Amino acid sequence: MAIRCNSCQNVCLPHHVGTCKKCYDGVREAKEELMEEINVLKAKVDFLRLSSSLDHGSSSKSFTDVVLIAYSEDGVASPPITAHKAILVSRSRVFTAMLENETEESRSGIVRISDVSYDALRTFVSFLYTTEVCLDEQMASQLLVVSDKFEVTHLNDRCEKYLVTKLTPENSLMAYVFAQQYNAKHLSNAALTHILDNMDKISKTEEYMELKKRDPHLVVDMYEAYTIKKLDINRFVIMKHVKLFNSFVMLL
Amino acid sequence: MAIRCNSCQNVCLPHHVGTCKKCYDGVREAKEELMEEINVLKAKVDFLRLSSSLDHGSSSKSFTDVVLIAYSEDGVASPPITAHKAILVSRSRVFTAMLENETEESRSGIVRISDVSYDALRTFVSFLYTTEVCLDEQMASQLLVVSDKFEVTHLNDRCEKYLVTKLTPENSLMAYVFAQQYNAKHLSNAALTHILDNMDKISKTEEYMELKKRDPHLVVDMYEAYTIKKLDINRFVIMKHVKLFNSFVMLL
Repeated sequence: MAIRCNSCQNVCLPHHVGTCKKCYDGVREAKEELMEEINVLKAKVDFLRLSSSLDHGSSSKSFTDVVLIAYSEDGVASPPITAHKAILVSRSRVFTAMLENETEESRSGIVRISDVSYDALRTFVSFLYTTEVCLDEQMASQLLVVSDKFEVTHLNDRCEKYLVTKLTPENSLMAYVFAQQYNAKHLSNAALTHILDNMDKISKTEEYMELKKRDPHLVVDMYEAYTIKKLDINRFVIMKHVKLFNSFVMLL
Repeated sequence: MAIRCNSCQNVCLPHHVGTCKKCYDGVREAKEELMEEINVLKAKVDFLRLSSSLDHGSSSKSFTDVVLIAYSEDGVASPPITAHKAILVSRSRVFTAMLENETEESRSGIVRISDVSYDALRTFVSFLYTTEVCLDEQMASQLLVVSDKFEVTHLNDRCEKYLVTKLTPENSLMAYVFAQQYNAKHLSNAALTHILDNMDKISKTEEYMELKKRDPHLVVDMYEAYTIKKLDINRFVIMKHVKLFNSFVMLL
């Protein structure tokens, strides 16, 4: 008698059998429970998500009590971005220290942030209200910097994960330098893997020559990591051979 | 050769087989993806959840700009509960209308709420910040009333679902009356099912006699719903018999 799969109805050969009926029904029920949990969590997220103060523009009706201003590298101030102290404080310990103590920012209600673009600051503030963000490489890099500054781990992780997906042998050296500067360990490790696999090419690029001049310590760090990793690989290969050799000796 | 389940390792008899390997692996992978989605959503909820203004007590550091006061049935005012207009407005259209227009509440920054206990109002405000709530029957009833008043559907649904799980033949009549008063359709229907199944007993209780005197229209509504449901059941039974009869005639 042919045994058929409950799901696709194809005939099951002995080596094709997956589960018994009980286990299959168990997994299916578990899946339904997970879907239910997802719906509950989605409803919570929808409820908790705040309409950003940006949606209200400068209307007094949004009850904002603080203003953020972005300063570009050449010291030009952006238009002000309104926000609520209570929201900023709840999302970042840095904002808490800044706004709950006797500081220039708490007195004036103005937070000045340097080396960030207006767009990036707007996106940052919007994220604090909604957890929503639309990333490209440039935005992810800028937001990684600002979320590192304000210790917003949730956004920092998101940007780091995004940048890891965009790594190539060509951009790995600059990504490594960037990651080292902003303490992004996950990105740093992933970039290093790309560098190790392409060391011969990378060490001949202009970017590498430039870096060696500007920051030789960083290049040394990179070589040290490279050496440790190479050593680990060699050790792994040697251990594998030793094990094989031992097994062979046992057989004799 | 014995066929074994991939999951529990028991021997599969033909009628015990659940899925083929491919379908099983598919379901398992789908389950892992759902678990991953749950983790992402949980992180979002954690990020978006605000520490309630209640946690700060009356400290000026929490940047609150509105006060809520509960008034009991006999007009006694509760201690004030501090909150943020921006949060209340983002959670409820009623608060929006109240605080964004030229009203007594927006001018004074005081919202007076009648017929609610201090505890229920505190729990309500805390929910608006966190989506967290610990329910018992009394709290669920009170929160259903206040969330109906302020049109906070997310909390209203939660209370209604909780109260449905607590229905018994004994409390179904009062639950029905309560549900009708606060437009809780799901609770009203569930209570009606209990009532219909126990109409003979319920129509002899003191609560029923009392309700008949106080609100005869509601009792009429209940009987009408009862009659429609009974008719539906009878129609279903008749249709079933007609179908059976037709099948029988076809066979002759």
